[in-house]
Parts: sequence; structure tokens; C-alpha cells
Amino acid sequence: MAAPIVTLTTDFGTRDSYVAQMKGVLLRLGPPELRVIDLGHEITAQSVREAALFVRECVPRFPEGTIHLVVVDPGVGSARRALARSWEGQRLVGPDNGVFGWLPPSDQPVLAHGIETPSDAISATFHGRDLFAPAAARLARGEPLDALGPAIADLQGLSWPSAVLRGDQLYGEVLHIDRFGNVITNLDRGDRHLLTADNATVSLRGRPIGPIREHYAQAQPGELLALYGSSGLLEIAVRDGSAALIVSAAVGDQVSVAFGEVPG
Amino acid sequence: MAAPIVTLTTDFGTRDSYVAQMKGVLLRLGPPELRVIDLGHEITAQSVREAALFVRECVPRFPEGTIHLVVVDPGVGSARRALARSWEGQRLVGPDNGVFGWLPPSDQPVLAHGIETPSDAISATFHGRDLFAPAAARLARGEPLDALGPAIADLQGLSWPSAVLRGDQLYGEVLHIDRFGNVITNLDRGDRHLLTADNATVSLRGRPIGPIREHYAQAQPGELLALYGSSGLLEIAVRDGSAALIVSAAVGDQVSVAFGEVPG
Amino acid sequence: MAAPIVTLTTDFGTRDSYVAQMKGVLLRLGPPELRVIDLGHEITAQSVREAALFVRECVPRFPEGTIHLVVVDPGVGSARRALARSWEGQRLVGPDNGVFGWLPPSDQPVLAHGIETPSDAISATFHGRDLFAPAAARLARGEPLDALGPAIADLQGLSWPSAVLRGDQLYGEVLHIDRFGNVITNLDRGDRHLLTADNATVSLRGRPIGPIREHYAQAQPGELLALYGSSGLLEIAVRDGSAALIVSAAVGDQVSVAFGEVPG
Repeated sequence: MAAPIVTLTTDFGTRDSYVAQMKGVLLRLGPPELRVIDLGHEITAQSVREAALFVRECVPRFPEGTIHLVVVDPGVGSARRALARSWEGQRLVGPDNGVFGWLPPSDQPVLAHGIETPSDAISATFHGRDLFAPAAARLARGEPLDALGPAIADLQGLSWPSAVLRGDQLYGEVLHIDRFGNVITNLDRGDRHLLTADNATVSLRGRPIGPIREHYAQAQPGELLALYGSSGLLEIAVRDGSAALIVSAAVGDQVSVAFGEVPG
Repeated sequence: MAAPIVTLTTDFGTRDSYVAQMKGVLLRLGPPELRVIDLGHEITAQSVREAALFVRECVPRFPEGTIHLVVVDPGVGSARRALARSWEGQRLVGPDNGVFGWLPPSDQPVLAHGIETPSDAISATFHGRDLFAPAAARLARGEPLDALGPAIADLQGLSWPSAVLRGDQLYGEVLHIDRFGNVITNLDRGDRHLLTADNATVSLRGRPIGPIREHYAQAQPGELLALYGSSGLLEIAVRDGSAALIVSAAVGDQVSVAFGEVPG
Repeated sequence: MAAPIVTLTTDFGTRDSYVAQMKGVLLRLGPPELRVIDLGHEITAQSVREAALFVRECVPRFPEGTIHLVVVDPGVGSARRALARSWEGQRLVGPDNGVFGWLPPSDQPVLAHGIETPSDAISATFHGRDLFAPAAARLARGEPLDALGPAIADLQGLSWPSAVLRGDQLYGEVLHIDRFGNVITNLDRGDRHLLTADNATVSLRGRPIGPIREHYAQAQPGELLALYGSSGLLEIAVRDGSAALIVSAAVGDQVSVAFGEVPG
């Protein structure tokens, strides 16, 4: 049987000792063969949406049985609940604030439980160490979700920004800009309008980019192009350069796709 | 039995290959089931105090048997000794320059040994790879501390900056500013003066902050507040913002606590 | 037997989920006891030379059997081949673009194979996840190199920038500047001219630095010095400071060594 895995995703950075403290708790309270795997600690501070996108992209790649600990928690100390839940055969631990809200839908029922505070002595400011890491360690030792606290029926969602069709144009927005300057939008390859968009023209901030291409190699070095990125979302990129710099793009900017004819 | 753990804390960053080289040595010379755990590599270059604070906060969280390799070493190539020592049931390997000097006191006796240079051929500039990592690997294989070198009786200390009581005010200083802009001071919740500070007023750089609160939620968004952070040290923070930016705080700045009456 | 190790070196950073996605694939497709080890994800974006230097410095430190996954891949989507090869008793997986080109020569024969695309459905933009990580996972499960694809005889090389002797001066260049501001050159301690350079004078960008020293401690704090770094390459450094800042050095700058007499 595989050694249990707990992954860590936070907005703590690694210059401070916060992530290190959580690892100490996991290794002390977890099973002796535990594998602790860093996913990322550079989520923009307190950005639930950035965390939700990160979780959406990577959790589905992991094996059954993995436990994901995600701590991006602007509401620490407030009334938001502490959550441990399932997604397919994996489990997720973190604040109930939407960080798990953009995971793909699943046929399997979601089991969700609150995490009861182990004692009054926990820190008011560091639930990652004092509440979430101990809960993840207990799951890694084989305890079931319902041992952690009462069932939760009304999970906090996070609405995916919808594409809007207006006339012969589909409007979306910039969700994320990656390290390479690729501009990632909310427009999904699976959107029924895009499925038929054979001769569409993509624009970003009103600037025409061109049709939706299949490969970087279809553009010249330095040329902007639109294509579906590795997660199926429409991206604006540039070969050997930063599209975000060239078009001064920022999260929230408008992107549009103009169809030759109004799609059905 | 748990697979041995060696943690790594350095000021090397991860853009260069220094940390990677140390991992290679640990995995090559260590036991076959070794777990290598990154704690942090973004300690400010050559800052022994920042490393000591980092070690103080995270080492006590780890399980018995853990080996911590800490390489923040402004004196590499000089006469500072190479050290392997115990702290409770854990072991610490690094330069004898104070990086372990702020660990909480322990009832258990400290065993401390120098690390003998394995040969004349080691690099004059990279003891992390050539001296400390091999020593940590030997400990992880089960060798005792005293196999590494002669006992050391006079460990290099690092004095904790003391709080100073003058009149009805307790004076301290800023120790660290974390990623979120929280301003962490040397004033410890356990200080006997603070234990009775029910109606104290905290000031930072002469600017009044207010009383010592229990939770972030006791302040409005954007409002500065003083509270004990997750490690028991007095912090100046701001809900949903950076206190360090608002008050232009830097490491070494003065913080004070004014008591309504002179504490006993 | 040791649990299999796959290391990861990329230019992806850890703010985006790309590295996390690769770890998911490795853990899902790899053997149940797999150890995933981060080497570095902060290679300058698309810098094959920086990756090649990183690989050169750390791969030789690792134990036999290690699998190194290196994804710095400016040509993703173009015709460059996907490669899995041996180096001594270790294996390397990544693009065939020179990232493995600066490894030390070895007496052992190199086995090199292309990686056949598992299906048409792989992403055109993320071979790290869809092509290289699955290949590394298969090797970690015990499959041989030749199971991945056809043999490759003509590996893409990367020429090491040669030192040039002109008159009584040896000319080289700046290869890398590390986090501490140490300026690392292509001049190797093993170069036959340098072996006899007892009274040489090193210059950087035309500025005299001095003779080649053995230790940092031979310079005063703040003083520039030349010495062989931990990898055997000539470095310009400064005690307790950044040589790169002091001399405004950049990658590609000229370094020279003037000999008292023309070396034999």
C-alpha cells in the first residue's frame, strides 16, 4: 500500500517559519511513513480565487487517497468554518471559504465535515498549524472524515465567472497571469459556443489577437496568439515572451471572442 | 519505526543549485528510506538572528528523532566551529554561530560535539555540502553525536534582546516582519510584566496602537491592532493589510507598552 | 532497497500550479513508495544554459538510481525531441535541447532514447506534465529506457564556452551570478593554464581584482577577491557583500587572468 500523502498549498511563502511549523505538526501527529509534498506557498496573500484556480488545476492529477491541506484564509479568527471534505477518492482540508469551489464536478457524493476545535488553547491566528494540520494528520492516520466534526450540508461555494454571450461576441475575463506572462481566461474549451468557433477572433482589452490556434509554433517569435492552455482555458500567449507585458494585462481585464456568425 | 527525517533550513534560495547539491549528498550518504524536508531557503542572506527565530518557532513542532540541518553561515572559512547537538529528543547540525541560540530552554541535558573535517579536500566555501550534510547523513544512519567529533562545552549563544522596564513603560524592539506585514516583537506573552498588563497601551515607533487584543476580529478592516501572535510574541498587525507598510516599520524599531500603573 | 527518487528541476516557479500538476502525475503513475524531491523551480525562464549549469553542479551528487526530471523547454511544441537517457548509474528525463549538455564526461556508455507520445491527446503546451512526468514515473516503476521509445544516437549538445589564451592572458566569461552576488565564470580549476597560475592577476570587466585566493578569510570584509568556488570554477566574490553589485557584473561579461609569464 502506498505511503500516505499530505500536500500543502498556502499563501505563507517560505521566508517565515509558518509552513515549516505546519510540516512539524504533520510529521509529529501523522503516520510514521507520511510523505509531505509541497504544492505551492506563493499564492497571492489571501486570494481565495487564485487558490481555487490552483486547486482546480492540480488536485485532479493526484492519486486516490491523497490528502490536500490548503490554507489561504483571509477570515482566520472570524466565523468561517473549518472544513474536511472528499473529492472523488481524495480528501481536502482547509477553510470553508471557496478555495475548493472550482474543482470539477464529480459523480461521487461529497462528504463534508466541520473540524471541531481540539481545545481552547489553539492560536487565534494560526489555524493552519493548530487546527488544519492536526486534522490532516488524523486523516492520514486512517481516521474517517466524520471523526473530525459534524456533517456540513451547505458548503461555501465560489461562483465561476461566467462567459456572457452578447450579439455575436462571447465575453470573458482574465483569471490569472502565470510566471511566463501567459494570460489565462475563464473561457473554457468545453463552452458550447466555443466548440463551434472555427473562425472566431479573440480580443484582449479591445486589442485584436487573432483566431484560436493549436500550438505556439503557429505563431512567430514575439507574435501574440490565442490558444487553449494545458488546463483547457483560453490563453493569450506570445512565443518566447510575456503576453501580459506586451498588452499590459491584469486579472479582471475583459477578453472577447467575436464569431463570424452568431453561434447556435 | 518512522523513516528518518532530515530538514533543511538555509539562506541559499533555490535559484542556484546549492540546496540541490546538499540534497544529493544527504540522499547518497543517508539511509535508504530517508525523508528530506524543506523548511525554508529564503532566510535573509547571512542573517543569524532571522535563522535563530525561524529555528525557535519550528523545531519544537517536530517529532522526536528529527535531524535539522541549518546553514546560515556568514563565517564559513573562518574559525567558527561546526556543530552537531541535541535539543530534547531531536538533533541539530550547523555552524556554531548562534542559529540554535534562541531555542526554548529544555530540562534535558544538551549533548554537543564538533564535526571533524572529513578530509583536507573539502571546499573552503561550501561547508553545507561538504561538512554539514555528510554529518546529518551519518546521524540519520544511526551514528551517535559523539562519533562526529570532540565534545563542545561552550556553545556559542545568541542573546535574546531583553525587554526593558523604565518607569511605567516596557520597551522592546521589532524582531521580524513577516510576509503579511505583521510586525513581530521580542515581547513575550510570558513576560511577568505583561502578564498583568490588562489595560496597557502598545506603541510602535512612538505611534499609539491600542490595547493588547485577543483576535484579529476585534479590529476593523484596515485598523492597526496589537495582539499575541501564534508564537506568543507581541505583534502589531492590521486586518486585511500590512501593518509594516502602514507604520513604515523595520527590524530594530522600538516598541513600548505603557501600563496604567507601574506593574509589580 | 532504497525507495525510488525522482527529482524536479524547472523554470516554472511555484506561484502557478504547473509543478504541482507534475507532482500529481508522478505520484499517481509512479511506484507507491516514490520520493519526489524538489531541486529548484526558479531557473530563469527558458534559460537552457542556466539549467545546464544547475544540472552539472547537482546531478553528480545524487545516488545511483536517481531519476532527474528537468523541464526548461523553450521549444515546447516545436520539433525538439523528448529524451530519456543515462548518466553513470542515474537517469535523466527532459527535452533534448542541451540541458544535460554540461554534465561531466563519463566512462560509462550513454543510453539515450526518445519518448514516444503516449497519445494524440497530450497538451501541446505542457509536455512536463503530459510527456516527461509519465516517462519518469515509468522509469521509477522499473521500466528500462528502451521501453520509452527508439534509441537516439545524436544527442543535442551544448558547447561549454571555452577559455581563450591570447598572449599572456586567459580570457573567459561570466556564466552565472548567484544569490549572494558571487560572480561565477567558465574558467575551471582544472584548466591546464590555470594549474600553473601561481602569480596570476584576475580582472573582471577590465577591473583588476587580484590573485587567486584559497579562502574568503584571505580578504577583508568588503574587499573583492578571486577564488575557486565550490564547483571548481573561478569566482569573483566579496566577503560579506555582493561582488556583482560592486562591479555591476552580468552574465556574459569578460573575465581575464593575466600571468606573470606566458604559461607553458
